[in-house]
Amino acid sequence: MLSPLIQQLIEAFSHLPGIGPKSAQRLAFQLLSQQGQPKGLVLSEVLKKAIEKVGHCQRCRIYTEETLCNLCKSPKRNASLLCIVENPADVAALEQTHIFSGLYFVLQGHLSPLDGMGPSEIGLPHLFERLKQEPVEEIIIATNSTMEGEATAHYIANHIDRTKIHCSRIAHGIPMGGELGYLDGGTLGIALQFRTKMSLT
Amino acid sequence: MLSPLIQQLIEAFSHLPGIGPKSAQRLAFQLLSQQGQPKGLVLSEVLKKAIEKVGHCQRCRIYTEETLCNLCKSPKRNASLLCIVENPADVAALEQTHIFSGLYFVLQGHLSPLDGMGPSEIGLPHLFERLKQEPVEEIIIATNSTMEGEATAHYIANHIDRTKIHCSRIAHGIPMGGELGYLDGGTLGIALQFRTKMSLT
Repeated sequence: MLSPLIQQLIEAFSHLPGIGPKSAQRLAFQLLSQQGQPKGLVLSEVLKKAIEKVGHCQRCRIYTEETLCNLCKSPKRNASLLCIVENPADVAALEQTHIFSGLYFVLQGHLSPLDGMGPSEIGLPHLFERLKQEPVEEIIIATNSTMEGEATAHYIANHIDRTKIHCSRIAHGIPMGGELGYLDGGTLGIALQFRTKMSLT
Repeated sequence: MLSPLIQQLIEAFSHLPGIGPKSAQRLAFQLLSQQGQPKGLVLSEVLKKAIEKVGHCQRCRIYTEETLCNLCKSPKRNASLLCIVENPADVAALEQTHIFSGLYFVLQGHLSPLDGMGPSEIGLPHLFERLKQEPVEEIIIATNSTMEGEATAHYIANHIDRTKIHCSRIAHGIPMGGELGYLDGGTLGIALQFRTKMSLT
């Protein structure tokens, strides 16, 4: 029923993560309308430019169009503390807490040999080289708590010179505001296992 | 924290309808990843091309890059029946039912004087001209059942030569599978008012 170009546009939108056929159609019609056209042109242009220009930060592998990202360039960050995450979105989430003042290393994935993701694909040689050159005292491994994330965490921990660098894993347990009755057994189990001592006040 | 180009990309996505800041960030990171880049380039290109080339069908005002849309060109459609809808998405929804075989007229909006949407903005002069030239016997007004949609429906009904053209409104009432206890009073009221006679079997 729709003309080829419109169908192509709907299809291009529906290939994006989290956008189904109905949303794709709504987006396409919206961006073709008179009010939507300027937004659509901006999106098209910025998207093309970003894909062409954005690469990885040479130090932490996060996306940036410059050699070093804003975090790696900042003199305010504590270079003795390094947090290792899987994705750029994890950095954004951690930065929102305003609690961590160290630097990051973004794996851009996790170890998954069946998908062809080995240590080199997630930048581990680069990480180990960086640990030799920089004054890192502690690394906090904050990979996801999935099978692959845990395996990646263990691989990294086993390949670090523990005599020089303290290696910790981000805490797992009951999320703030979480009710025990709604949590899965895995989370409860790990929360019991890694219970912390209460200090007297 | 993010570099300017990536922030621009996230912002461009977050201006789209139904996409919040979190989804926008996810889309941006996804399309900058190695697997996402080809999809992103296709989207950028198709979007630009579609906005440049797609206009309105000269007969029914739906989006198309050609002079007439596929529906208006089709010899299989019943030209004596004309359905008037607000948006192209409404045509897509009605076409999915495979019940309607007539042609359409897309207002691309509804009457809303405060927003500067008068009869000319929603193509009514063009519609009335079309009714004079084409062998339309019945029009079905399927504008939305909002205040503006109802006002638009009444305006159109009042400006049509009823001696020549039969004018009907799409039925309102309880949706299929709907449970009375969950429906709003407005729907129940209209469903009672427009009750239909049951035929004996």
